[in-house]
Amino acid sequence: MTFDNRELALAQHLADEAGKILRRHWRTGLNVEQKADASPVTLADRECEEHLRTLIEKAFPDHGIIGEEHGNLRSDALSQWVIDPIDGTRSFIAGYPIFATLIALTKDGVPVVGIIDQPITRERWTGVKGDSATCNGEPVTASRTQSLTQAVIATTSTYYFTQEEAALFATFKHQCAQTVLGGDAYAYAMLASGQLDIVIDAGMKPYDFCALVPVIEGAGGIITDWNGAALTPASAGRVIACANEKLHEQALKLIQSATI
Amino acid sequence: MTFDNRELALAQHLADEAGKILRRHWRTGLNVEQKADASPVTLADRECEEHLRTLIEKAFPDHGIIGEEHGNLRSDALSQWVIDPIDGTRSFIAGYPIFATLIALTKDGVPVVGIIDQPITRERWTGVKGDSATCNGEPVTASRTQSLTQAVIATTSTYYFTQEEAALFATFKHQCAQTVLGGDAYAYAMLASGQLDIVIDAGMKPYDFCALVPVIEGAGGIITDWNGAALTPASAGRVIACANEKLHEQALKLIQSATI
Repeated sequence: MTFDNRELALAQHLADEAGKILRRHWRTGLNVEQKADASPVTLADRECEEHLRTLIEKAFPDHGIIGEEHGNLRSDALSQWVIDPIDGTRSFIAGYPIFATLIALTKDGVPVVGIIDQPITRERWTGVKGDSATCNGEPVTASRTQSLTQAVIATTSTYYFTQEEAALFATFKHQCAQTVLGGDAYAYAMLASGQLDIVIDAGMKPYDFCALVPVIEGAGGIITDWNGAALTPASAGRVIACANEKLHEQALKLIQSATI
Repeated sequence: MTFDNRELALAQHLADEAGKILRRHWRTGLNVEQKADASPVTLADRECEEHLRTLIEKAFPDHGIIGEEHGNLRSDALSQWVIDPIDGTRSFIAGYPIFATLIALTKDGVPVVGIIDQPITRERWTGVKGDSATCNGEPVTASRTQSLTQAVIATTSTYYFTQEEAALFATFKHQCAQTVLGGDAYAYAMLASGQLDIVIDAGMKPYDFCALVPVIEGAGGIITDWNGAALTPASAGRVIACANEKLHEQALKLIQSATI
């Protein structure tokens, strides 16, 4: 089951359109007192998702859509667009240019196209099943780091962990060379680009992880759930990405030895 | 006690020179297996600090220097250059463009010039005592958010806290509208630009916080230690920055009510 060029072109177009909207809303929260409701990030998120949904419906009226703000459409369709206009809303709020727009296309549950787009730094990682992943057209390669003790590990936030998950992450932190907090999807892009060796997260939703799969795999990395199973829109939200098979084996062993 | 134009020009020149070196080392860690020692970040840090020290010595041979890698020089001098080539080394390692070069000049213990420079996104915040702070030449203003419950708060990493400090931060997290992790000096720059309302950190060193003072104050914000005292190179490392006096008052009250 694969994708065609029209579908890949739409994925790129969706990322372009999202970028235009997000750059317009970026850092406009100056002196807005009511940040809690109808914040710039919420407005940008909603406007963006509505626009992307319209474009998808127009191009492929029989495809399904999975999105954060407006829920699921045609859940039984073979082709599903899984989109998140702003992954890393806290980074967006803070004004850190490390949030991302995520666009994925899955076929029969398999992510076949994935885009991680950073519209401020204008970096775009594209992955398509069975081919090399790229950043702005240039191939990217995950690192060759072979052991946990030399690995740089990241997680988005320790706040997203249960107590048991936090204890497991503390074990990783203790074993690995360096620990980085923050990053959301941008951390997975950095793994694809060889900067980070392991990224581990819990509580992720399909629109948080589907787009990551073709990018990580196309860079030579491995991304699975915490049991080592392939990620599909139906996966629970515990995700581990590693730069290569050797690291993935060691990481899974560490997970299996923990009480989670 | 104030600065002269030659000193301000040197501060800008130091940031320019640091940027050139850091852009050269940025994201070159691909497939480097021995990340723990002599990592790209360490090499960049050392090369940068040596170069900046040479430039300072040449321009102002009687000024003191406080830096991370090569220690202190002429500690009794009235004018002290307080520099950190890479604040946010973990962000640098991860490939996140939110690390910063920090350049400060203190006179008799008072930070009179401060620069926060992000060489990848090419954003530079400049603060000089008694004048408006700027980002790339444009004035910046901290937010008017008036209460903790509407505030967005940030800290660099919960790992830098003692148990008591972590408990205090949890109280802030509970009271504030949003919590952001990560950012280092970039978080303080975002406070100056009105994105974040409160930044709180512990365990900071003079080269981490001296450059922040003129930037935050020049944007209308307040930055002190956790007792509300002005920051000098001799301050202990507990730092709180707030967008305005009202928030600062509330934040200090919360700190005073805690056991730290």
